[in-house]
Amino acid sequence: MTTAPLSGIRVLDLTSVVVGPACTVRLAGYGAEVIKIESFEGDQMRALGGPSPSGQHSGSYLHLNRGKRAISLNLKSAAARTIMARLLERCDVFVSNLRPDALARLGLDAERVRAAHPGLVHCTITGFGPAGPYRGRPAYDSALQGASGIAGLFGRRDGAPAYVPFLVCDHVVGEIAAGAIMAALHERQRSGNGAALEVPMHETMAAFVLQEHLGPASFHPAIGPLGDRRVLNPDNRPLATADGWISLTANTDAQTRAFLTAIGREDAIDDPRFRTTADRFRHVDAWFALRNDALKGRSTAAWLEVFARFDVPAMPCHTLDSLLDDPHLAAVGLIEEVAHPTEGRVRGIRPTILNGGVPGDAGCGAGPVGWDTRDVLREAGFSTGEIEAFLASGTAKAHARAGAARTAEVG
Amino acid sequence: MTTAPLSGIRVLDLTSVVVGPACTVRLAGYGAEVIKIESFEGDQMRALGGPSPSGQHSGSYLHLNRGKRAISLNLKSAAARTIMARLLERCDVFVSNLRPDALARLGLDAERVRAAHPGLVHCTITGFGPAGPYRGRPAYDSALQGASGIAGLFGRRDGAPAYVPFLVCDHVVGEIAAGAIMAALHERQRSGNGAALEVPMHETMAAFVLQEHLGPASFHPAIGPLGDRRVLNPDNRPLATADGWISLTANTDAQTRAFLTAIGREDAIDDPRFRTTADRFRHVDAWFALRNDALKGRSTAAWLEVFARFDVPAMPCHTLDSLLDDPHLAAVGLIEEVAHPTEGRVRGIRPTILNGGVPGDAGCGAGPVGWDTRDVLREAGFSTGEIEAFLASGTAKAHARAGAARTAEVG
Repeated sequence: MTTAPLSGIRVLDLTSVVVGPACTVRLAGYGAEVIKIESFEGDQMRALGGPSPSGQHSGSYLHLNRGKRAISLNLKSAAARTIMARLLERCDVFVSNLRPDALARLGLDAERVRAAHPGLVHCTITGFGPAGPYRGRPAYDSALQGASGIAGLFGRRDGAPAYVPFLVCDHVVGEIAAGAIMAALHERQRSGNGAALEVPMHETMAAFVLQEHLGPASFHPAIGPLGDRRVLNPDNRPLATADGWISLTANTDAQTRAFLTAIGREDAIDDPRFRTTADRFRHVDAWFALRNDALKGRSTAAWLEVFARFDVPAMPCHTLDSLLDDPHLAAVGLIEEVAHPTEGRVRGIRPTILNGGVPGDAGCGAGPVGWDTRDVLREAGFSTGEIEAFLASGTAKAHARAGAARTAEVG
Repeated sequence: MTTAPLSGIRVLDLTSVVVGPACTVRLAGYGAEVIKIESFEGDQMRALGGPSPSGQHSGSYLHLNRGKRAISLNLKSAAARTIMARLLERCDVFVSNLRPDALARLGLDAERVRAAHPGLVHCTITGFGPAGPYRGRPAYDSALQGASGIAGLFGRRDGAPAYVPFLVCDHVVGEIAAGAIMAALHERQRSGNGAALEVPMHETMAAFVLQEHLGPASFHPAIGPLGDRRVLNPDNRPLATADGWISLTANTDAQTRAFLTAIGREDAIDDPRFRTTADRFRHVDAWFALRNDALKGRSTAAWLEVFARFDVPAMPCHTLDSLLDDPHLAAVGLIEEVAHPTEGRVRGIRPTILNGGVPGDAGCGAGPVGWDTRDVLREAGFSTGEIEAFLASGTAKAHARAGAARTAEVG
C-alpha cells in the first residue's frame, strides 16, 4: 500500500486556469511528477484568483497547482518544439485544456503527438466535443453552468437562474479527466498502448445534471415532468434555528420517525402523508413545510445535540469562517502550514483520501513562473550551454532563484 | 486504444443511494464488471429517486446503476458469508458506503477482508474520517452541503444559506472515489498489492470548497477575508436579455475588449477600472453592474449570434426542458433510447469521455432486484442445487425472469 500510487508517472501539463489544473493536481496528489508549462506571463489564475503577497500566487493558484514543477516556455518559438519533443519522449501523460485549433497550431494535437509517441496518454479537456455545432467555442465555468442546465435548475427552484457559488464545472470535469487518465494508464500497463482521450465539458456536465434530473422523462413516453421534485422543491433548504441554520436529512422511514420524535411531533408519525418514502415523495410540499418550521424555538447547538442522540443526519451549516474552525477538520489536520519560496508561510490543503489510514502528502504550494525550468531541461538531457541559449533567445524563461531546490526550502 | 480500459476488472459493489453508485457507474462505464449487491428490498433509490412504470426503477436509479449486474443477498444470514467469501475471491475491487460500524458487523471491514484477500482494492466511502469527532455519524448530501460550507456560500452571496440543486457532494465524491480506485489498480499492477482506501466525504468536500475559497486566508497572516470575491459577488449571475438569460464570461483583457465592443460600449475599454484582470478584480462591483444591465435591449438569440462573432464565451442558459433540445447534445448523441426488461423503452445517458474519438458504451439501464443472482452465483462456482438452497433459505433472492440474459433482451 502506498499513498503515491502514481509514483514514477510523469505528466506534461499544458493547462491553465481551473479545469486542467484541477485534473493534474489530483494526479500530483497521487504521486505523479507533474511538469506544468506556462507562458512567460504565467497562468492567468496567478492574478485572477485573487491577491497574494507577491501578486503572483493567488490562493486558488497555490492550491490547484500544489506539488507541481513549473517551467516556462515560449511555445510559439521554433526552438520550443525541440524542447517539447524531448519532454514528450520522457513523459507518460500529456494534458491540455487549450482549444483544439490552438493545440493544432502548436503541433500538439493527439494525431501528431501520438504518431511520434504511441505509448503516450494524450488527454485534451475541451468545451464541446467534435461532433456537434458548439465545437471550438470558448468555454468557461459560468458559460457551462448555463449551457448544462445548472443555472436553470436555480431558475426552476427559486424563480431566477443563478450560479453555483464555486467553479463546479471546472472542478468536476477536472476530477473526471483525472479518472479517465488513470483508467488509460491502467490499460497501458497491460497493452503498452497509449490513448487519445478527450473530455468535453458541456456533454460531461449535461450528463452529470441529467443522470439526476432526467427523472420521469427517462421513460418513453415520459411519465412526468423532468427534474427531481424533492431536490428542486423551493423548501429544500437549510432549516432556521433560533440563532442559525442546520442542514438535515431524514430519508428513510426510521430516520423520519426519529426526526419526528426528536422535534416532539410523534403525532405526525402515523400521518398517512408521511409514512413511507413514496408517501413523503407524493406529499413533499407538506413534508418540507412541517420540517422547515420545526426548529425555530431552540439554538443550533441544542438541536445538534438532540439530533446526534436520535441518530438523525444533521450538521451545522458552516460559513467559510466557521468551516476553518470545524473541530473535525482540525482534528484530522486538513490544513497544514508550510513555507513558500516567495509568499512566506502559506496554508496547504492536503489530499483527503486515506490509504491504510494515511493521507497523501500536501505537497508544496505552487512556485513562481519558471521555478523549475533549469532543472527540468537539465534532466531532459540539455547541456548548461543549451539551456542558457534557450533562455537568452527567449525560448525559455527561468526564475532567478538561489541554487537550492524548492523542496529543500519548504519545511 | 479502447473505450473499456477496465475490462477484466471485477468490482463487488455494496453501495446504495447516490455516492457509491456514482463511483461504481464510472467504473462500469470504463468496462469493469460491476456486481451490485442489494438487500431483498433493494436500493432505496429505486423508489426515492422518483416514479417509474413498475415503481422500482426511478430515473436516477436507472442512470446511476446502468451497466451493472444486480444480485440480492441477505447479508445478515450466516450462509451469505460463504457467498461473500467466494465473490471477494473472484473480485479485484470491493466498494461500500456503509457506515464503518455496519461494515464491521458484516465482517467486511478492510482489516478482515484484506487479511483474507491481500490483493483486493478495498474502498469505503464514509461521511467522516477516522481521526475526528464526527466519525460514524450518518452522512447525506444536504447534511454535507451544510457541513462543508457549500450552503453557507449561498448565505454569503444571497443572504440565506441554500443547497446546490443537485446532489453535488454525492456525485463529486463518487467521481473522486472512482479515481482513487483506479490509481490503486494502476499501482497494484506493478506491486501486486491491494489497498485499503477510505474517501471521507466531509473532508473531501471541505477541501473542494477551500481550494477555491481559502483565497486571501491562504497566507499567514491572512491578507484579506476568505472567499473569491468575484465568484461570491451577488451580481455574478446569468444576464437578462429581452426574452431570457445568457451565461457569459469575459476573463481575459482581450475577451473584455471584445465584450465591450460587442455591446457598443467601446467608451469603457480605456476606463482605468476595467483595463486589466487586476483592475476588474478591484472594481468587481462596477464591472458586474455594467455587465448585468447591458443585454436587456435584445433577444437571447440575437446576442448569442453577436457574441459568437466576437468570440466572447457566451451560452444559452438552459432549462431542463430546453437542455434536452440542445442542438449540440443532439448532434453528439448523448441520449440513446434502449429497451429495459420491465420499464419498456428508456432513455440512457452514455459516458461522455472519448477515446480515439469514440465514446464508451451507454450500457443497459439498471435491472430489477436480483436480476443476475443466479448467473453470478453459478459463475462463482455454486451448483444449481446450492443456488436453489440459498434462494429457499432466504440467503439470496432472484428475480423470476425468463431464461434469456438481460443483455440479449436489451436492443
